[in-house]
Amino acid sequence: MTTTYSDDELRALGQQLRVDSVRAADAAGSGHPTSSMSAADLLAVLLGRHFRYDFDRPAHPAGDRFVLSKGHASPLLYAAYKAAGAIDDAELLTFRKLGSRLEGHPTPRSLPWVETATGSLGQGLPVAAGIAWSGKRLDRVGYRVYVLCGDSEMAEGSVWEAAEYAGYEQLDNLTAIVDVNRLGQRGPTRHGHDLDAYARRFKAFDWHTIVVDGHDVADIDRAYAEAASTVGRPTAILARTLKGKGALAVEDREGAHGKPLSDAAAAVEELGGDRGVRVSVQEPPAARVLHAVRSGRLDLPRFDVGDEVATRDAYGQALVALGSARGDVVALDGEVGDSTRTEMFAKEHPERYAECYIAEQQLVATAVGLSARGWLPYAGTFAAFLTRAHDFIRMASISGADINLVGSHAGVAIGQDGPSQMGLEDLAMFRAIHDTTVLYPCDANQTAQLLAQTADLTGIRYLRTSRGAAPVIYPPHEEFPVGGSKVLRSGDGDRVTVVAAGVTVHEALKAADELAAAGIPVRVIDLYSVKPVDRRTLRDAARATGCLLTVEDHREQGGIGDAVAEAFSTAEPAPRMARLGVRTVPGSATPSEQLAAAGIDAAGIVAAVGLLVEHAVTP
Amino acid sequence: MTTTYSDDELRALGQQLRVDSVRAADAAGSGHPTSSMSAADLLAVLLGRHFRYDFDRPAHPAGDRFVLSKGHASPLLYAAYKAAGAIDDAELLTFRKLGSRLEGHPTPRSLPWVETATGSLGQGLPVAAGIAWSGKRLDRVGYRVYVLCGDSEMAEGSVWEAAEYAGYEQLDNLTAIVDVNRLGQRGPTRHGHDLDAYARRFKAFDWHTIVVDGHDVADIDRAYAEAASTVGRPTAILARTLKGKGALAVEDREGAHGKPLSDAAAAVEELGGDRGVRVSVQEPPAARVLHAVRSGRLDLPRFDVGDEVATRDAYGQALVALGSARGDVVALDGEVGDSTRTEMFAKEHPERYAECYIAEQQLVATAVGLSARGWLPYAGTFAAFLTRAHDFIRMASISGADINLVGSHAGVAIGQDGPSQMGLEDLAMFRAIHDTTVLYPCDANQTAQLLAQTADLTGIRYLRTSRGAAPVIYPPHEEFPVGGSKVLRSGDGDRVTVVAAGVTVHEALKAADELAAAGIPVRVIDLYSVKPVDRRTLRDAARATGCLLTVEDHREQGGIGDAVAEAFSTAEPAPRMARLGVRTVPGSATPSEQLAAAGIDAAGIVAAVGLLVEHAVTP
Repeated sequence: MTTTYSDDELRALGQQLRVDSVRAADAAGSGHPTSSMSAADLLAVLLGRHFRYDFDRPAHPAGDRFVLSKGHASPLLYAAYKAAGAIDDAELLTFRKLGSRLEGHPTPRSLPWVETATGSLGQGLPVAAGIAWSGKRLDRVGYRVYVLCGDSEMAEGSVWEAAEYAGYEQLDNLTAIVDVNRLGQRGPTRHGHDLDAYARRFKAFDWHTIVVDGHDVADIDRAYAEAASTVGRPTAILARTLKGKGALAVEDREGAHGKPLSDAAAAVEELGGDRGVRVSVQEPPAARVLHAVRSGRLDLPRFDVGDEVATRDAYGQALVALGSARGDVVALDGEVGDSTRTEMFAKEHPERYAECYIAEQQLVATAVGLSARGWLPYAGTFAAFLTRAHDFIRMASISGADINLVGSHAGVAIGQDGPSQMGLEDLAMFRAIHDTTVLYPCDANQTAQLLAQTADLTGIRYLRTSRGAAPVIYPPHEEFPVGGSKVLRSGDGDRVTVVAAGVTVHEALKAADELAAAGIPVRVIDLYSVKPVDRRTLRDAARATGCLLTVEDHREQGGIGDAVAEAFSTAEPAPRMARLGVRTVPGSATPSEQLAAAGIDAAGIVAAVGLLVEHAVTP
Repeated sequence: MTTTYSDDELRALGQQLRVDSVRAADAAGSGHPTSSMSAADLLAVLLGRHFRYDFDRPAHPAGDRFVLSKGHASPLLYAAYKAAGAIDDAELLTFRKLGSRLEGHPTPRSLPWVETATGSLGQGLPVAAGIAWSGKRLDRVGYRVYVLCGDSEMAEGSVWEAAEYAGYEQLDNLTAIVDVNRLGQRGPTRHGHDLDAYARRFKAFDWHTIVVDGHDVADIDRAYAEAASTVGRPTAILARTLKGKGALAVEDREGAHGKPLSDAAAAVEELGGDRGVRVSVQEPPAARVLHAVRSGRLDLPRFDVGDEVATRDAYGQALVALGSARGDVVALDGEVGDSTRTEMFAKEHPERYAECYIAEQQLVATAVGLSARGWLPYAGTFAAFLTRAHDFIRMASISGADINLVGSHAGVAIGQDGPSQMGLEDLAMFRAIHDTTVLYPCDANQTAQLLAQTADLTGIRYLRTSRGAAPVIYPPHEEFPVGGSKVLRSGDGDRVTVVAAGVTVHEALKAADELAAAGIPVRVIDLYSVKPVDRRTLRDAARATGCLLTVEDHREQGGIGDAVAEAFSTAEPAPRMARLGVRTVPGSATPSEQLAAAGIDAAGIVAAVGLLVEHAVTP
């Protein structure tokens, strides 16, 4: 490392970062200046001596990455942007105001230098580990990943899930800096200033650890250098700091969290005044972009109509094809690749496969990290277990991350394993998250076609697959536009429209045949695109039949029933609607027994249509 | 410990547990016999020498507790029940069949000896830690808590979140047994048979650790004794085992996970045959129930109409009152008690307060553990961060746990902190979980009254509170039945019904006044009970006004709009419905700016009603 700044200059930079943190929060009338002040020297030394970054070209492939895991310390981050010349003082003082890029917690949506949205504690390290994995295994251009963590967030299991992941993967390009300022939001943390408590934990997960005085720039400098020269393991720098450092009114005091200083002017003076200190951050070395997307012909698997194929199998095969066609596709799994069928990709494209073991938060975080580096991740596990990562998916949406999540073993149709393994709330979870696409195929060709389309969407794409084999009902080249649906049975005299998706499509078709034989023709819609939903087809069906019956292998709330109801939430009149879904906690039983017990099999549909027709008012 | 069984007898018991695991899975045609066989000796020694339990009286206050965290090893658990005489062989062979109590993964719903539902890995230890906390801090009758974990699940951060919790809380009544059989579902685990890798991690979290040969009954016995005599810290027993131990066709082999043995009869013979070995488990010592519910008069706080009070403040005060009236109320928080206002309870009833720090999974797991011991937990954090515990809440529902969850800082109305802190998906999450009650008060008296009612409900109760002060609009003694609503504005000529809850109630009232002045009378419903929803009032309003407009500080999916639509999901005709909700990712802004930007303030409601009225078809 070339030392371009003296220790004194770095100290002055640290004070300037404090001054600007205090000023920004003061201008905003809210924010977290004291949480910023504790980490100011840590960031000053990083910027002045170690970080290699081009603020004019944040996408530079060799630029180091920085993640502010303690996202509430955003004043510090923005003060650093100002010191580096990326924003000016006037913008700094827009902090937390309507329309400002400088939000309460940083997001890449508004700022090009932010890798991932933070503010839900315990997520910065996992995502940083995902970026570091990308750096070591895929990008390989030598950048380092720095993540600044708080001590309070060390209570989150996700931190140790990431520590385990990064240690096992030997991510020596990753440095976690823990700002141990001993005070959480409402008082002392569990371990106070016992730095060894944290060091012991990281070390146990096979990290290199360094304990420093977080206000001693020489000590900090040595630690960064040691981290950079450590091979085969990530480094955790445990820094003893004081919250509110530099302003005696708040320094190391309880009750000063998350609010501006009562006398900001006095604090600025105490900190040496606003000296307008700037820092010139080293540029990254020239680097070639390694992962220019190799695009080839997409040769999707084809399945013969009438064959019995599970949609998870079709997913596995189609993902292999997508990975062959596109060099930016990366697959991940939570140690259930033999169930989700991600293992097919792992065998064919091992260099682009990340085994995340049974750690769904890290699974999603790695996907978010890959997305931040321009890769196109597909992360799979059981649909039920994606709920484990709900908060990570929520934050990924705030980040505007482009990720694909695939949940297998949807619904009661999995059979004997019972409710713990059944995805019954996943559609509700994904529908309610911003900027999601929710797809639920019923046959193998449809699965392959939908998967192919996910590659060109933005935001969070969710594909729901099923465990059991089901008959292929669509030919290989059928098209399934996202936001569309398929009308599988239709006639002039249809009395009711049955809206199904996935496994219930097959039940609906059986029911339609039975009902037709009994003189009650029904329309059947395959609603493979749950979000966005095909309003036009649903409305046409409503006008034609007057009544819609939704049938889903999911809870009655938040899924297909709600999606269909939402399609009518405008000024237009709504049709009669009824819904079938899973209303109880299932036990163990065979798949067909489960569908029957939940009342979502053909017999359940026939019975429900019977009731609806009896009550139907002739238009 | 009195040794009632010889080592040879314990070995025979272990073999019997293996035999019955093999037989149960064979009869079922599915299941996890090999995962059961690795842990058979660990369980045999526990049952024969250390566990104190009365199978005829599972609620015995002094009985030890056992949690099968690796829930897929259910054949082993059921084999143990059989060996202990709790079930017979005929029932054992109903494993995984329709109607059987012996589900693929154990749940307390069906079996009185199960403490908590497992099957989502990494949850058994957190819940066991919650039970152990209850034992140490509240029950204090000397029972021990044993939890059998798999090695694969050590990848879950929740395991280390629990390790941190239990270590810090010095839960020396807790023993975790890790069945290190080296093989996960799809192949080797991260650390294989490196037992020290696990020991190092637990030790770092201040646990006592013991490494044993998991097939050596004397070694295992010593470990349990050492765990019981260890003071001030929980103990982790790391046991080296072989998956499928005892049947050479599968022993220590890959590809044998989660399926019956291909030749069960041969394996049974190899294991020494079915010798019908039984075990007589020691009875627990006599103990007095300490937490007989002290019931006093509930003296809820009262707020004057017109005062400005945040519902979170009312929650804090009401919880204190509830805790004074009921001795079984325990409060928990995720280190944001100053924000959620749980700190009021912590100050008033410190002996019944559990600080869980920033660890939402453990927060919910502790609540589940407390519920298993008969306490009535109220666990609070930001609504947004309850998504972190989604999978835990899902499993709590499968357990049939009686827990209260309180999410503060709902919606964009929190203002400057931005989207990471805003609960915008919480209603969707809770509505879709089985057996939940979802309440969302708009004023202080309503909050207190609803909180009081939660104490007598069952299942998972969710209360959503708001950060900002809002005018008290209801008098102190107004009643708010769960499943009800309040019609706040109503007249014969109402053109539209505005359905609101929480913060949007106040906006709806302002809008109604403006609209009335403009000659457009609207009905206003305060839908404080989001689940169950007041179908009758909504239907009456639909008949009277022909059109419903829902307004919510939540995503448009899964919340109030969907709940209202669901109220019409029957054979009856649905009204015209429109919805206002949060459609974008908010930035930072003041609360009123946020409501305006989301279009859910009074102006947004007025505009929406204008559009609806324009399009309204006169009946």
